[in-house]
Amino acid sequence: MKVGFIGFGEVSSTLAKKLLKNDVEVMSSTEGRSEKTKDILNEMPDIAKVKNFKKLAISSDILISAVTPFESLKIAEKYGIFNKGIFLDLNNISPDTTLKIKNIIENNGANSPCFVKGAIIGKVSSSDSCIYLSGEKAKELNFLANFGFNIKIISENVVDVAYIKILRSIYTKGVTALLSEVLAISEEMSLTKELFEVLAISEGEKFESIVKSRVESLSKSHQRKFEEMNEILDFLKDFHKKDFFDSNSKMIKATRDKFGEIK
Amino acid sequence: MKVGFIGFGEVSSTLAKKLLKNDVEVMSSTEGRSEKTKDILNEMPDIAKVKNFKKLAISSDILISAVTPFESLKIAEKYGIFNKGIFLDLNNISPDTTLKIKNIIENNGANSPCFVKGAIIGKVSSSDSCIYLSGEKAKELNFLANFGFNIKIISENVVDVAYIKILRSIYTKGVTALLSEVLAISEEMSLTKELFEVLAISEGEKFESIVKSRVESLSKSHQRKFEEMNEILDFLKDFHKKDFFDSNSKMIKATRDKFGEIK
Repeated sequence: MKVGFIGFGEVSSTLAKKLLKNDVEVMSSTEGRSEKTKDILNEMPDIAKVKNFKKLAISSDILISAVTPFESLKIAEKYGIFNKGIFLDLNNISPDTTLKIKNIIENNGANSPCFVKGAIIGKVSSSDSCIYLSGEKAKELNFLANFGFNIKIISENVVDVAYIKILRSIYTKGVTALLSEVLAISEEMSLTKELFEVLAISEGEKFESIVKSRVESLSKSHQRKFEEMNEILDFLKDFHKKDFFDSNSKMIKATRDKFGEIK
Repeated sequence: MKVGFIGFGEVSSTLAKKLLKNDVEVMSSTEGRSEKTKDILNEMPDIAKVKNFKKLAISSDILISAVTPFESLKIAEKYGIFNKGIFLDLNNISPDTTLKIKNIIENNGANSPCFVKGAIIGKVSSSDSCIYLSGEKAKELNFLANFGFNIKIISENVVDVAYIKILRSIYTKGVTALLSEVLAISEEMSLTKELFEVLAISEGEKFESIVKSRVESLSKSHQRKFEEMNEILDFLKDFHKKDFFDSNSKMIKATRDKFGEIK
């Protein structure tokens, strides 16, 4: 079993370490990558360095793309098509991009690799994190559970993991926007500490730490979150009938507007 | 120590039972009450029945008002003023009504009772529930903790418990509105079960049960919740400067609009 990685940031290095511990053959390439990525790879001598990504794609049983959302389509086009096993995309991409990649990957006839969409829920370095998978051959990646990964197969419909990411984003970002509003008011009333105590009664002990990390990260990430909410709204506008969209986008629009207003 | 109850629904009967178990003298009156209330009281022979509420008010060390929000002001005017100990209002009332009651209760010179505002967070019958208290003499009710009550003193500022209730409402009702929106979309995608699983990872195990009870109750309570959100918005509009209100009412208005639209 050979697992090849395209892109070697936190996600890939975390997954690669676990695989290496379990004697899986892990490969990557430094072709055209940044000095930083080269350094990370060179610090892991157990990873086989292949000359270029095309060769990596050809020789990997599982080829993992963990780059940036913007690069994901290009990686599929340039390298994914050469794979003969399972091409697993772990990037945070839209349902549209997911379907475009599916078409690129699986339009090669009998020699096409299988496309599986994945998403890591939670911080990849945390033991709580879980890899969500969907696609016709997603089940074939179930063996990763033996290596200490939390694996959850959603369905055979490859786009479902991208849908789940959107649904989760609507909820978590909506809660962040709501909290940012209620905390602004509680600060005015000098009752923030008391509010956290009262909410812990109904929302559980984890609540304060979850909230704080969400709201604190907002000062740095509001612009990106604003853009993500706009992308979600664009997607839903196409996905749903007008009446349904109008009824079921009120909280999503308010979340977007809230993020858009932060300076 | 004599504790008198005005209003004898679920809150009063639950609290009275705990007090009786701890050998506290509990009193009430059936004066002008419904047949249902009379039945509840008659089933509890350990509760002293006083001829009328004025006498109850005079002889109670702690006089508890647990009626409806609409009756709370009248109860304070008609009976609360005759008390010589602590007048504890447990009704779900606004900061404005709280301050009106404070003025009524404490404008009787040296003989005035002390006014303490209380709110029960959580279901009164649940062992998790907590009584929040604020007011100058709120601390004097700390002894209730010895009788198995969860007591939390917020501050000496009587209105703070009413503020906390509003802050909590903004959060819990906002989450309910957000969930009602995201669940409508997940239903369309046939991914509701999977969404709950993914959210349980980050939001904790309690999440699904909390959510379900909130969203399920919405079909019966959306009209009341819509009115409550309008009252909260009216209050905040007066409480805050225009710019602050405009910035910090986006999620609250969307919550109100969401509830207003449910048929």
